[in-house]
Amino acid sequence: MEKTMEKIVALAKARGFVYPGSEIYGGLANTWDYGNLGVELKNNVKRAWWQKFIMENQYNVGVDCAILMNPQTWVASGHLGGFSDPLMDCKECHERFRADKIIEDYAAEYNVALDGSVDGWSQEKMKQFIEDNNIPCPTCGKHNFTDIRQFNLMFKTFQGVTEDAKNTVYLRPETAQGIFVNFKNVQRTSRKKIPFGIGQVGKSFRNEITPGNFTFRTREFEQMELEFFCEPDTDLEWFAYWKQFCIDWLKTLGMKDEEMRVRDHDKEELSFYSKATTDIEFLFPFGWGELWGIADRTDYDLTQHQNTSGQDLTYFDDQKNIRYVPYVIEPSLGADRVVLAFLCAAYDEEEIGEGDVRTVLHFHPALAPVKIGVLPLSKKLNEGAEKIFMELSKKYNCEFDDRGNIGKRYRRQDEIGTPFCITYDFESETDNCVTVRFRDSMDQERVAIADLDAYFADKFTF
Amino acid sequence: MEKTMEKIVALAKARGFVYPGSEIYGGLANTWDYGNLGVELKNNVKRAWWQKFIMENQYNVGVDCAILMNPQTWVASGHLGGFSDPLMDCKECHERFRADKIIEDYAAEYNVALDGSVDGWSQEKMKQFIEDNNIPCPTCGKHNFTDIRQFNLMFKTFQGVTEDAKNTVYLRPETAQGIFVNFKNVQRTSRKKIPFGIGQVGKSFRNEITPGNFTFRTREFEQMELEFFCEPDTDLEWFAYWKQFCIDWLKTLGMKDEEMRVRDHDKEELSFYSKATTDIEFLFPFGWGELWGIADRTDYDLTQHQNTSGQDLTYFDDQKNIRYVPYVIEPSLGADRVVLAFLCAAYDEEEIGEGDVRTVLHFHPALAPVKIGVLPLSKKLNEGAEKIFMELSKKYNCEFDDRGNIGKRYRRQDEIGTPFCITYDFESETDNCVTVRFRDSMDQERVAIADLDAYFADKFTF
Repeated sequence: MEKTMEKIVALAKARGFVYPGSEIYGGLANTWDYGNLGVELKNNVKRAWWQKFIMENQYNVGVDCAILMNPQTWVASGHLGGFSDPLMDCKECHERFRADKIIEDYAAEYNVALDGSVDGWSQEKMKQFIEDNNIPCPTCGKHNFTDIRQFNLMFKTFQGVTEDAKNTVYLRPETAQGIFVNFKNVQRTSRKKIPFGIGQVGKSFRNEITPGNFTFRTREFEQMELEFFCEPDTDLEWFAYWKQFCIDWLKTLGMKDEEMRVRDHDKEELSFYSKATTDIEFLFPFGWGELWGIADRTDYDLTQHQNTSGQDLTYFDDQKNIRYVPYVIEPSLGADRVVLAFLCAAYDEEEIGEGDVRTVLHFHPALAPVKIGVLPLSKKLNEGAEKIFMELSKKYNCEFDDRGNIGKRYRRQDEIGTPFCITYDFESETDNCVTVRFRDSMDQERVAIADLDAYFADKFTF
Repeated sequence: MEKTMEKIVALAKARGFVYPGSEIYGGLANTWDYGNLGVELKNNVKRAWWQKFIMENQYNVGVDCAILMNPQTWVASGHLGGFSDPLMDCKECHERFRADKIIEDYAAEYNVALDGSVDGWSQEKMKQFIEDNNIPCPTCGKHNFTDIRQFNLMFKTFQGVTEDAKNTVYLRPETAQGIFVNFKNVQRTSRKKIPFGIGQVGKSFRNEITPGNFTFRTREFEQMELEFFCEPDTDLEWFAYWKQFCIDWLKTLGMKDEEMRVRDHDKEELSFYSKATTDIEFLFPFGWGELWGIADRTDYDLTQHQNTSGQDLTYFDDQKNIRYVPYVIEPSLGADRVVLAFLCAAYDEEEIGEGDVRTVLHFHPALAPVKIGVLPLSKKLNEGAEKIFMELSKKYNCEFDDRGNIGKRYRRQDEIGTPFCITYDFESETDNCVTVRFRDSMDQERVAIADLDAYFADKFTF
């Protein structure tokens, strides 16, 4: 079976996982809407993160901060000064490009070894490389570029009546800063002592020049970030702890070793303030892509905010009688990306004998958008089946389907990843039992209706 | 007991429900961040809505659409043309005001009867009224205003590299339009037949001139909207159905009759396309405020999108063999507002004998941010108590507190609305039982540790 993005995008659209955004108007540059199944899948993923990182975790609490923040936040974080892409235009065809991307593509095509990651190059070095190698415009093939200039990736808007500098605000490019500026507030109200963490799930916006690969890179996206505050010199231990915690979370939800790789950054690749950074990557049909960045950010963020705001952001340890700016470990996960990864990982086409093939999404039951399909064998049996459906719907997202033959209905549930189907048949009316059918094994089991609640109680935990 | 906004805002900040946004930078014009308890409360409210409106409801499914949409959406919806406030400046002191607001305030102060709602007045009529009554500037007291002009309330930003008209996009002012443009997609992928509904929870943005009243009116806010599609001529029945459904939802979650009122719009107040509209209002300490607007929007929205996009948005009823543009009933609820309403409704100060007073939040257990407080009577008992805490944390958001005397710890849990406290005492070590203490009655009950799971199983449903 060849697993391609085409197949996954087609299934996503056909079954209600993801539609192109504003589709009736011809879309809007790589925006996407989650459909009736997509919203359930994404909510399940976010809930699974919240459950393990916040609810069950004794160290952490959550917050939910505004997307619009005081612009001084972005002065302190460095986003106003440095969060930009190096752009240049072709003077011949007027197309616009990212200089680093042109260099990387050129190097890949002609197998040229580059001096470290282009990310880290100066503008001058990029310009020189493009000149030295006479790199052509990817669109028109000529070589006549403007100078490189920096393009800030934050979306800008105006709050209030006039569109001037005083009223300029930005859509947050990451959720992390909402946590940093609230460090003292949360520490005070949660009465947590260090080490402790603050997590947040929410939308962020980056005006990417080249969004793409379906929902992998979009301008509007959702993040699940944890900022974990610890004592200086304990940071590398906690870095290792959270790195393993993230890997375990993915594996518990069914991600396989061969689909994942953990890539530690070398010294050159590290941000100047970071002591250690690791990317957890997933093997998408289009190649390896980053899901999770886990970084030891030292005391950089809190120090920056302390200096810019003039507020004291130190922590006083009353047992050790010491005061310090906490160090931070940040595991930052892209919600849309990890949803896409789970969708790709789940996708399968199985031969099931006699040349028959079924498409099936092998979601972990905790992530499956529909938990239980309730299928009356005949429309005459709808009343009894509906009773079961109504009862189970109080706890689980269920689907009722009385259309088509039972085999087709199983296929339909397989294709959306429903782990359990309940078939209500004529015998059910007298023996008060139903058949439970399993998505992966296709095995069946007879269960008393009265026992269904207990039967499913531990089926969706993880 | 006097329930004031001051008390509620103070408690919200002190206990981690809501902090001022970007506080270390002096805030940002009425933005707010949900703290460690606020995020749990808000998530519980959103989950309660999703549970009754989507999961348990046989008619409805959900979606989650992008905030950035193709601008044609706002041409069709009328937001680009008509979604604006009438503004004017004082030529003397250069303050800026909403003309309708100045008129309403003046009429209220001098007890002047107005000709219908100022909302519906023309610009000329407002101007004339201000002249005729010689209304003074609320800031400097002089009477020298500019003309009134319309100020569009949508936040504008630029997607892509250049800041020009071609790249202008808007932050959605409501979630509803994401549903309308996906009507066909969702109908196809969910295989729903009319009548059915599509719900969405998400952020919207309105560049309000006068935000205020804590989280009641903010520029960035969250909505929970349902668009329910039905056959023409069945709309008023469904309007009545959803109106009652919304009232029941609030009551089930503990809202009292005397805190709510249902206000049907008169003919003059109705939008030109609406056949019926009702507001459900809540009595905040600052007065009655709208929580929920329930509107019969007829076929206005789908027709507008059909005309603007050129796409067919009709529905074919294959049983009756008729084709039509569906009518829409829209119950639209402000998430931040209803969270604030539940917070205000829950707030109480109780005399509990001997002159002692406790502050208590009487949240419905389904909404309470912390479900169970686990309190070892002595730090020597932490091991046993932690075991219980870890076990219960798999299902519920719990808090572990071993600091201070037990009475103070009960007060603290009362003040954040925790419905149940478990006290683990020295006897627990031998009799394997704990004391469960109830927030509202302050009664206590001895329960076997082994039975806790079953004991709490039905305590948080609604």
